[in-house]
Amino acid sequence: MAATNIQEFVDSNRTKNIDELIALVKQKSISSSGEGMQETVEKVSALLEDIQAKTQVIQTAGHPIVFGEIKGQQEFTVLLYGHYDVMAPDPVDAWVSPPFEPNVRDGRLYGRGVGDNKGQLMAQLLGIKAYLEIHKQLPFHVKFVFEGEEEQGSANLGSFVEQHKDDLLKSDLAISIDGSCHESGAPVLRLGVRGMLYVELEAVSASQDNHSGNTGNIIKNPAWKLVELLSQMQGNDGKVAIKDFYKGVQAPNEQEKAILHQIPYDSETLAAKIGLPNLTLSQEEYFTKLMYEPTLNISGINSGYVDAGAKTVIPSKALLKLDMRLVGKQNPDEIYQNIEKMIEPIEGVSVIKMVSTPPSSTNIDSIFVKPVLAALEQGFGTDPILEPVMPGTLPNYVWTDILNVPVLIVPYANFDQANHAPNENLKLVNFESGIKSTYHIISEISKIIEGGVKQNEYVKGSSI
Amino acid sequence: MAATNIQEFVDSNRTKNIDELIALVKQKSISSSGEGMQETVEKVSALLEDIQAKTQVIQTAGHPIVFGEIKGQQEFTVLLYGHYDVMAPDPVDAWVSPPFEPNVRDGRLYGRGVGDNKGQLMAQLLGIKAYLEIHKQLPFHVKFVFEGEEEQGSANLGSFVEQHKDDLLKSDLAISIDGSCHESGAPVLRLGVRGMLYVELEAVSASQDNHSGNTGNIIKNPAWKLVELLSQMQGNDGKVAIKDFYKGVQAPNEQEKAILHQIPYDSETLAAKIGLPNLTLSQEEYFTKLMYEPTLNISGINSGYVDAGAKTVIPSKALLKLDMRLVGKQNPDEIYQNIEKMIEPIEGVSVIKMVSTPPSSTNIDSIFVKPVLAALEQGFGTDPILEPVMPGTLPNYVWTDILNVPVLIVPYANFDQANHAPNENLKLVNFESGIKSTYHIISEISKIIEGGVKQNEYVKGSSI
Repeated sequence: MAATNIQEFVDSNRTKNIDELIALVKQKSISSSGEGMQETVEKVSALLEDIQAKTQVIQTAGHPIVFGEIKGQQEFTVLLYGHYDVMAPDPVDAWVSPPFEPNVRDGRLYGRGVGDNKGQLMAQLLGIKAYLEIHKQLPFHVKFVFEGEEEQGSANLGSFVEQHKDDLLKSDLAISIDGSCHESGAPVLRLGVRGMLYVELEAVSASQDNHSGNTGNIIKNPAWKLVELLSQMQGNDGKVAIKDFYKGVQAPNEQEKAILHQIPYDSETLAAKIGLPNLTLSQEEYFTKLMYEPTLNISGINSGYVDAGAKTVIPSKALLKLDMRLVGKQNPDEIYQNIEKMIEPIEGVSVIKMVSTPPSSTNIDSIFVKPVLAALEQGFGTDPILEPVMPGTLPNYVWTDILNVPVLIVPYANFDQANHAPNENLKLVNFESGIKSTYHIISEISKIIEGGVKQNEYVKGSSI
Repeated sequence: MAATNIQEFVDSNRTKNIDELIALVKQKSISSSGEGMQETVEKVSALLEDIQAKTQVIQTAGHPIVFGEIKGQQEFTVLLYGHYDVMAPDPVDAWVSPPFEPNVRDGRLYGRGVGDNKGQLMAQLLGIKAYLEIHKQLPFHVKFVFEGEEEQGSANLGSFVEQHKDDLLKSDLAISIDGSCHESGAPVLRLGVRGMLYVELEAVSASQDNHSGNTGNIIKNPAWKLVELLSQMQGNDGKVAIKDFYKGVQAPNEQEKAILHQIPYDSETLAAKIGLPNLTLSQEEYFTKLMYEPTLNISGINSGYVDAGAKTVIPSKALLKLDMRLVGKQNPDEIYQNIEKMIEPIEGVSVIKMVSTPPSSTNIDSIFVKPVLAALEQGFGTDPILEPVMPGTLPNYVWTDILNVPVLIVPYANFDQANHAPNENLKLVNFESGIKSTYHIISEISKIIEGGVKQNEYVKGSSI
């Protein structure tokens, strides 16, 4: 008996849906080692074929992309993004149940990748399956892009999108279903991400460590070279002093500020969570700093002797890792070039670019925001939270800057999913809310395109 | 048959002397672990008693000091300093022969502590023994101070000297027999040492590491706190900007400059030795920087993620170790207080003082310089080199600033003794040159005190 509404679909398929998720989680797919990737590609392809998606596996320079497409009544196209790879499960000893033997406890399914991202990927598929079962046909085209390198920085996603932007991937809207809901349990719709430039610098002095008594004042200490460079990179006002660093940074406008005031903010709980004695920032300051201001962070610095006691050494080398979170229209490649220019005159200092991901944003006025918020409210049964920018980094620029469509980030996993950590889990209620949300996303978007608004207008109305 | 001159003593006792040294090196005396310290104290005491020294073992807060005294014809007193402790032999696998089974190869005796300082200590004793055998009596009093904590920074030597400066240790001249000859093989007489202030700083931010995406701009990175502090500590001119840091620094005078020009200087060999592509400093610049200018060196700095790849973290802690080589009349305690004042206004930064050793210097015009140079020339059979300042650090201030006597540093070990490293060794020719040099030091000094010049005049004439 086919379900006649989404709640019925969820209720009548409860065991079957969880069993399908368990089977997917059981299948290892560790992108860092490559273990089980091929088998998982086959499994995900089979799941797509089960819902009649035209499916293909596309090779990249890294792990393949599983692509699927289901035609709908209108030309309008939504691209759903997820990933099938998972993090390595270390430390395995810290798991209560083995990471690849999924186990239900207290309403949560435990297993590596269950939250990040297999449960969310499965919720996408089951939401579409439900829509097809209830309505027989989709209102518009849906495309699926499931990549296998998200946990390794999506190194080949950009060139894949570049290569297929005018055919296979041609869409009007991308939805990235990844991440976590708000800690209150409320669903979240995120519109943008901070970008990132990650560089590693090395300073060398002599070809060997030396005694500071025998060579102090003769050899320039490489750690001093880095410290001097860092102090050139930051002005006395605490602002980043790399040339043109702030080019493209934009303060939030009044509309955005109003939205910042609607995001739940409890400075006491936050301070405790991040390990600060207190957090004196106002709500607007806090969210503005996280969403509209770039950072220059020392992720790592190391040189010389750092164990117990005193050792007097002029180290031969010093290492520095910097990450820069970028906002607005900041350009990581231009910033990198200006860093290269800064180090050029300094003898014995070199730099390499490790990550360069532009920031990405979708306009709050996009016509897709309201329908997706409405879908989340129906899916989760509670008011969703709108976040203009996610302070972390995702490669969303591939959709906004290469495919040239708006992208909405819609996480289904619970806040305490422990992804990348032992005992990763997904609340089963979140799994089902995700299935329902996907169903409602299709329904709600179909309402606004029923009039047959032309594709270009969507793009324009939701400018990036 | 008693020897009638020093060469005869050395020649006729060759095997016996080496056997005595081998027995002493066989006896472990690792001050860091305490292994064998008590047994070595007994062995060294017995060696002193063998030459009729009035011997006592004096307890300190750490390892004991072995003190000996031999009365001579005049009241004038020379204090000979050495140490009986050795460094740990790690890595043991890198030794060709076991570190505590002394072994002769190619004219060198190999074993832990043979160069630093047991061979030099033994050469002192045997030189005095020779003098007594040849002349029956010393021309003046000789005192021996052999400590057991030199390899751990001589932490208790200062208070020992303070406590006994007016009785047991009362002397007119101290001679520290430690270190290495010049790389050319020539003996060296060193008059001063750079001092040291070694501090460890810690900066903290939150009580845990945090994600730079989630907390960038919210939490102040502790590595940035240290970088900002370091850039306050150094001016744009490259000079140290700690308040009053240069108080007491004195440029070399014309006489000292002239001496700098007499020290062998081969910039090409030096550059290769320390691992630089080239060394463009003039001879005077080079020795002035090493002997008359202080340093502010980053011995170690560490924070965050420094392994391969990219990790975006705001570390909870950052560590910094600084060593400052001090010259002239610089006062490490005053400098430390000014560092404490610098960090006071910075939240979450603390400092501890790990080593505080004032610089020490003995005037080139000291009347003891010429006789000791003459003794070294006779002992080694080659022209000695005079170095106004040793660029490294020794606790010589205990003699110049507490005991209030001039101190001469007279190393006997070969330049490539590999002390603190595997395969430590002492050239047997250096061992015998050391025995002869000690003998001649007694002879040569006796010549200038024969006239009965009063003690105060020595001190005055060799002002510190």
